[in-house]
Amino acid sequence: MKLNSSDQVRSDLDRLLPLFDAVYLRTFEAGEAPRLAEAICYSLRAGGKRVRPVLCMLAAECVGGSAEGALACGLALEYIHTYSLIHDDLPAMDDDDLRRGQPTSHKVFGEGQAILAGDGLLTEAFQVLATASSLAVERRVELVSLLAEAAGWRGMVGGQSLDLDGEILTRSGQSYGLDHLQLIHRLKTGALIRVSLEMGAVAAGADAAQRKTLREAGAAMGLAFQIQDDLLDETSTDEQMGKRVNKDQDRGKITYPKLLGVDGARRALAEATGQAVSLLSTLPHPESLIAWAHFMAERTS
Amino acid sequence: MKLNSSDQVRSDLDRLLPLFDAVYLRTFEAGEAPRLAEAICYSLRAGGKRVRPVLCMLAAECVGGSAEGALACGLALEYIHTYSLIHDDLPAMDDDDLRRGQPTSHKVFGEGQAILAGDGLLTEAFQVLATASSLAVERRVELVSLLAEAAGWRGMVGGQSLDLDGEILTRSGQSYGLDHLQLIHRLKTGALIRVSLEMGAVAAGADAAQRKTLREAGAAMGLAFQIQDDLLDETSTDEQMGKRVNKDQDRGKITYPKLLGVDGARRALAEATGQAVSLLSTLPHPESLIAWAHFMAERTS
Repeated sequence: MKLNSSDQVRSDLDRLLPLFDAVYLRTFEAGEAPRLAEAICYSLRAGGKRVRPVLCMLAAECVGGSAEGALACGLALEYIHTYSLIHDDLPAMDDDDLRRGQPTSHKVFGEGQAILAGDGLLTEAFQVLATASSLAVERRVELVSLLAEAAGWRGMVGGQSLDLDGEILTRSGQSYGLDHLQLIHRLKTGALIRVSLEMGAVAAGADAAQRKTLREAGAAMGLAFQIQDDLLDETSTDEQMGKRVNKDQDRGKITYPKLLGVDGARRALAEATGQAVSLLSTLPHPESLIAWAHFMAERTS
Repeated sequence: MKLNSSDQVRSDLDRLLPLFDAVYLRTFEAGEAPRLAEAICYSLRAGGKRVRPVLCMLAAECVGGSAEGALACGLALEYIHTYSLIHDDLPAMDDDDLRRGQPTSHKVFGEGQAILAGDGLLTEAFQVLATASSLAVERRVELVSLLAEAAGWRGMVGGQSLDLDGEILTRSGQSYGLDHLQLIHRLKTGALIRVSLEMGAVAAGADAAQRKTLREAGAAMGLAFQIQDDLLDETSTDEQMGKRVNKDQDRGKITYPKLLGVDGARRALAEATGQAVSLLSTLPHPESLIAWAHFMAERTS
């Protein structure tokens, strides 16, 4: 992600990433299954943007909590995100050879170990939350439940299933409309971004109203993120993105630009971003998250 | 599993399975991703033996707790077990077309949906524990952590990874010995059976000594289960097992009968069973678990 859109974003990253990176790989350093640990660390090290952990830590700060207090949530979110990329890249799913500019897990370790690396990361996400000693047990239980809801069959995994089904539909000459596209993305990418903000709120002990606001702002940011993803897939190059682009069109996938036109998609992006900003503005310390909302809408990779 | 070895086992099943079946599929009845829910329910309905939930509920009763109190643990264990079967059956893993006498998930729903069905079940296991309202939050957090440890990269997933690696080793003409075989099985099948008993202990509020005893008895029962599995793979038919047998030998996998001979493997089985029985005998109400230890060693499918 190019960091030209905001000094605020740059300074937040400079502050938060060292915190995150200090604990990020520690868990997987030793183990009795070295090949699996290697596969897990390969994907964790591949240099993701850490969008979800950063949003989670900023959400905690936004309501007066500390980034450190939300660190376990950030780890869990990044483990879930990384597992979902490993599984999505498999031949039976999106069949991608390249991710973040590097060969995908199954190209390096084989499909079997890649599936297991994803399974191991998914499982570890809940371990990190359950053992987050800086959080009261009531909060840990709530965080496990929130993350399982957002990542599971009612959330991200459900969205991925609908997306796979949708490809089959469109390949057979059928189609679907904006409502169904929105459902897919609300689940597939939206749920995890939304819950990143909500988990930050819970970790910080936000009250119910603040938590609801962060949840709704997160949902709007998740939608904006996906629209921008579709726009970038349509308008940028493989090199910029570190992965294959135009693949959605190549396989006849329905996207926001396809349904709304590029200009219509840009308007929808601006609207979702505006909604997020307006919600965030009601919170005690919203500057960083607002900068991120703009930044995510303007990103070029 | 043929139920000729013990009236105690039969009566425990008659008592516990209706409890379990009443809640078993309820979670997945509605959802926005119907194909995924269908794939999940297909595997859950395939009629597994419910060994892990039954052991968990009996472990709770064994130390004076109730089966109902351990029901959420039983569900979580069965979700994890079922997910692991779906993923293990995939072409990139054991490549099985048949499971419990029926076509495997990927044969019916395709590989992509099968991978997602596994991911959804794995995630839901932690949801069930986190929201188990009959258990204090301290216990729920502990159960999430125990299950994640046993099922994850340090446990079951790690064992599966070693097993995949081992096949590559033996196909390339190399080999490994009893120590490595024991490590694989301690992780791959042992960890989940061991933790079934330990989770029952935690759900029932067992003291530290009882919990340790159930943990160790569970480890011995897990080992016995695997040795018997290897023996059955060597000596029974596809029809008896509801899945392809002799497959371990076909692909040159190391097994207990191969390393120890059939008689040696039977002696090791008797020894592990004896160890479990001797540990269980020290607990308040051990009759049912002891009957299960014998039953699991004598099963014919």
